[in-house]
Amino acid sequence: MVRHQVNSSQRPIGIFDSGIGGLTVLKEIFERLPHESTLYLGDTARVPYGIRSPETVTRYSFENTRFLVSRDIKMLVIACNTVSSVSLDALRCNFPVPVVGVIGPGAKAAAAATKTKKVGVIGTEATVSSGSYTRAIQSIDSSIEVFSISCPLFVPLVEEGWTEGLITELTAEKYLAGVRDKAIDTLVLGCTHYPLLKPVFSKIMEDSVGLIDSAIETAMEIRSILKEQSLLNAPGSPVRHKFFVTDAPQKFLTVGERFLGRNIEHIEKIKLEMEV
Amino acid sequence: MVRHQVNSSQRPIGIFDSGIGGLTVLKEIFERLPHESTLYLGDTARVPYGIRSPETVTRYSFENTRFLVSRDIKMLVIACNTVSSVSLDALRCNFPVPVVGVIGPGAKAAAAATKTKKVGVIGTEATVSSGSYTRAIQSIDSSIEVFSISCPLFVPLVEEGWTEGLITELTAEKYLAGVRDKAIDTLVLGCTHYPLLKPVFSKIMEDSVGLIDSAIETAMEIRSILKEQSLLNAPGSPVRHKFFVTDAPQKFLTVGERFLGRNIEHIEKIKLEMEV
Repeated sequence: MVRHQVNSSQRPIGIFDSGIGGLTVLKEIFERLPHESTLYLGDTARVPYGIRSPETVTRYSFENTRFLVSRDIKMLVIACNTVSSVSLDALRCNFPVPVVGVIGPGAKAAAAATKTKKVGVIGTEATVSSGSYTRAIQSIDSSIEVFSISCPLFVPLVEEGWTEGLITELTAEKYLAGVRDKAIDTLVLGCTHYPLLKPVFSKIMEDSVGLIDSAIETAMEIRSILKEQSLLNAPGSPVRHKFFVTDAPQKFLTVGERFLGRNIEHIEKIKLEMEV
Repeated sequence: MVRHQVNSSQRPIGIFDSGIGGLTVLKEIFERLPHESTLYLGDTARVPYGIRSPETVTRYSFENTRFLVSRDIKMLVIACNTVSSVSLDALRCNFPVPVVGVIGPGAKAAAAATKTKKVGVIGTEATVSSGSYTRAIQSIDSSIEVFSISCPLFVPLVEEGWTEGLITELTAEKYLAGVRDKAIDTLVLGCTHYPLLKPVFSKIMEDSVGLIDSAIETAMEIRSILKEQSLLNAPGSPVRHKFFVTDAPQKFLTVGERFLGRNIEHIEKIKLEMEV
């Protein structure tokens, strides 16, 4: 039997995250690359990754990537700051597709934006303690000072739908107090859930502080890599979007549609754990 | 080779939870059953269970139980409301040791305590949507009205160490508004993390509302079952306490010692996923 050969540009972009957060990246891909097909995998049976050890995160990431690569993707997008922080190099070395994370694009945009050479980064425990944003920003300009703060409550607040109101503002004030002292002019939202809190951050930070949304920066990076490698899909080709989750899809659907701003169709529950 | 035969009363009690929450139950076991050895398993690589589907929770619970049973426990304690809600019967049917969950003891205490026949229950999404407390309380006294509220932010607040202060009080007020209207006189803390929030709950609820701490009720239930089955360990026998986790132990140690109120020694990282 001869396997149907898909034009290599028509193959989908594979995207994974520990859960629904990566949908903010997918949303920007839809926006900026409307002719691309996508496969999105949310590892909802093991979410959240931000509290786990690097070796566990890498093990889960390999399982996710194996699944997507087996579906013939043309590029892998790690739509998760934690995985991009701790597992990007291992994934690049072990899989035969271009791999894009969210740290590099966010760091590049922050380094370009700061005038005071003082940048704040907020993220999960794992992202912050990995020091990956600091390394990435300082590898571009070593004179930039980076102040990082882990904010474990933002993800559950966003998932609960409390993206505004007094509780969320007080929480943000408490976490951000540490970077407000530092006269930063740029704040990197180092977690894919955080774009939903932009109005709260804007309210709390000085107007002079610019917010860097890694989701937007990543979508632009994907576009330029696909263009460079002549892998952009031609307008008019069929476009499909599929979603996979590792736990029951109900919560992913209800919360996810808020993240994505559109309906989620073609969703399937899959099992990963037993792969070796 | 003849395997060393341990006196069956000397065998340890096995306890598992998705993470550190079950340590509030273990603390009460230490308090009330000081002559018992214990093995505690926290499935920290897959915590939290409260947001997962029943089938995923049951699958994880079987893997945890298999591990503890292989270590020759004399009794299994499910120190997790989510697992007790959705997987207790399946575990009882499939493993040859007495199994105690936290729902039954909490429900029994609530039914005995209420005079107004109106009981509030707070817990995770999975516990509340399973309706298990309502069923357990009403199977004792069908005239009792039960009002349940899921409070997903309490667990991350406790793990962040924010067990007091304005943010936690406002969050508790927001969640509990729904049961304060109902003239309840008894509130079941239906999650093993919640005992650490007792001072906040006491501040917000009327003085006339009694708080039911499932951890205490469960320890008393364990005691009476062991006594009934002549399995209580004799004073003076050697006592050992061991801890197992499925992710790196660091966070479990720092947060867990706060839960337990004492040092955690003899901790080991184990791997469960590949079991079949």
